[in-house]
Amino acid sequence: MLNNLRVTLANGKSTEVFFPDTVRDLSERLSGYGRRVLWVFDTNSRNLLSQLPEHCVILPSGEKYKLWDSVEKIISAALDARLGRDSIMIGFGGGVICDMTALAASLYMRGCRLVLVPTTLLCMVDASLGGKSAIDFRGVKNLVGTFYPAMDVLISPSCLRTLAEAEYMSGMGEVIKHAFLSPDMDLYDFLVSEHDAILRRDRTVLCEMLRLSLSVKAGYIERDPEEKKGIRQALNLGHTFAHALETVDNFGTKHGMAVAWGLSRAAWCGVRTGVTDPSLAEKVDSLLRLYGYDIDRRIERGRWIDYSSAVSKDKKNISGTVRFVLLEDFGRPVLRELDSQIVREAVLTSAGVQG
Amino acid sequence: MLNNLRVTLANGKSTEVFFPDTVRDLSERLSGYGRRVLWVFDTNSRNLLSQLPEHCVILPSGEKYKLWDSVEKIISAALDARLGRDSIMIGFGGGVICDMTALAASLYMRGCRLVLVPTTLLCMVDASLGGKSAIDFRGVKNLVGTFYPAMDVLISPSCLRTLAEAEYMSGMGEVIKHAFLSPDMDLYDFLVSEHDAILRRDRTVLCEMLRLSLSVKAGYIERDPEEKKGIRQALNLGHTFAHALETVDNFGTKHGMAVAWGLSRAAWCGVRTGVTDPSLAEKVDSLLRLYGYDIDRRIERGRWIDYSSAVSKDKKNISGTVRFVLLEDFGRPVLRELDSQIVREAVLTSAGVQG
Repeated sequence: MLNNLRVTLANGKSTEVFFPDTVRDLSERLSGYGRRVLWVFDTNSRNLLSQLPEHCVILPSGEKYKLWDSVEKIISAALDARLGRDSIMIGFGGGVICDMTALAASLYMRGCRLVLVPTTLLCMVDASLGGKSAIDFRGVKNLVGTFYPAMDVLISPSCLRTLAEAEYMSGMGEVIKHAFLSPDMDLYDFLVSEHDAILRRDRTVLCEMLRLSLSVKAGYIERDPEEKKGIRQALNLGHTFAHALETVDNFGTKHGMAVAWGLSRAAWCGVRTGVTDPSLAEKVDSLLRLYGYDIDRRIERGRWIDYSSAVSKDKKNISGTVRFVLLEDFGRPVLRELDSQIVREAVLTSAGVQG
Repeated sequence: MLNNLRVTLANGKSTEVFFPDTVRDLSERLSGYGRRVLWVFDTNSRNLLSQLPEHCVILPSGEKYKLWDSVEKIISAALDARLGRDSIMIGFGGGVICDMTALAASLYMRGCRLVLVPTTLLCMVDASLGGKSAIDFRGVKNLVGTFYPAMDVLISPSCLRTLAEAEYMSGMGEVIKHAFLSPDMDLYDFLVSEHDAILRRDRTVLCEMLRLSLSVKAGYIERDPEEKKGIRQALNLGHTFAHALETVDNFGTKHGMAVAWGLSRAAWCGVRTGVTDPSLAEKVDSLLRLYGYDIDRRIERGRWIDYSSAVSKDKKNISGTVRFVLLEDFGRPVLRELDSQIVREAVLTSAGVQG
């Protein structure tokens, strides 16, 4: 098992990340939490356990159930199981389950203990670490939530063996984002040199990739746990482009795929505005192509109004101007407003080309 | 205007308490928050303003609406008003409104700014200070909530002029509780000597009483903002008895009246178990009688099962044993389990007396 990673987050609370690399290691750690525990699954993640625990709630799977109604089910189950403030909720699943379990744990008796076991690559490298809980509200993604770091996060590549290929590649989009947010090139070089092993999900290589990726994320959130200093926002690299794509596409594009596309668009805008050196943008695009992402995709011209309105409806932009994350260099993100015309050029099919 | 009181609370955040003693002072301070503000009223408190502000939500009044549905209305109104994370929600009303506005503010975009203007005495001395937000859930009072201290709390006796007598006396129950939780006797002596002025709501005397009362509360919450060290629990003096009375009485007894009664019952149990000196219990009862509380009330013998089950359904007791706050002396609360037989003696009519 790799060394743990301890990350200090909101309210001075810290999260301990463990990397149990086999099913056996994972089970052992989980059984250590005792029986006064409520498990939260979705209809997919429940299949990863051969036997369901005593107290559990199984929610329908998917972003469209990321609503108060589901959180209410978790809290209700906690009450039935007579959980106290010292008891533990275990969120066992992807980002939706982890975000909602974290919200329920932060609210139940004003906060009980929280353990997260992300079962998708996307959730391992993104939602599980950082203390953000959330549900969607009136169509705005993650509008309602709290900062509530998990006590423990258990990241085990053993959960990834059966993950669908598209889900796996969605997670890789966030990993590649972290490579460019890192001030050193360790993760970038690793992604280039270990490409084959990563795609065949070699356990040892995966563990190292997860550790490198989470260390980059940890560096940003530790300096700005409640996203108040303009540092943590850097993790949104590619995301403003991505969220709007997801919206106009009715969430038919997986999040990490959209992020990969958004990364490429952000690099393009960086070059266009003189922020990013063309050689760096070329590195972004090459790595994305190496992993097979469709970065040539463009929005049809007739959908520009939809796309542009989706950009301004992003939660972060409700009250003011839209700021994009651009890259000055590896690990040197900057927040910039972008002229609407530039965004338009970045995402639309050019005049003569059919979308 | 009295000096402000600054109280450091959960997450190292602090609340500034202001005492604007006239309507004019209060209005001036409120207008200083600008226009990117959402106001939350109930159907009572809205009448305290001659003109409604631009962005506001008016909720139905009463504990039975202290539910997610109301919080959702607040969040929805915030979204309509395009509030951002730097915008302000102002909770203007009694405990229910303040608790729910605080919850909505803690959840909207993972936390926007919060100002509370308590308009009842109970809320001024209790709910407004301390950073607890809450709603009821499946009949359990305050089961769901967060720790989220207000940025500012504005406490103005001008709001109390039209408060119904029963509401006023309900608030006084918590003030008297604070008198016995204070390590000095300043508040106790003040309540004895200024009894007449307090009952006729003399503005200057009220201000001083509010300041003394809040200082006592502040002393407990600053040492234990998230109620994890067994210190803040002392503020529940009388409350375990009180909550159960409120429950068996279907909330027909006002909270502060129930707390006054519970104080007397806790003092009785303290004497019975050798924790409390009889002379202190006598002081408790005399002060309560001076203010006209019915401390001779008892539960009918046939309702003991209901009462006793209500005690164990108190949120704090869901997962384990019931601990009561007893008094060793002024400002020296202790947490004790009590034999069920002693609780029974404390609250039931004696065998020969009709309940």
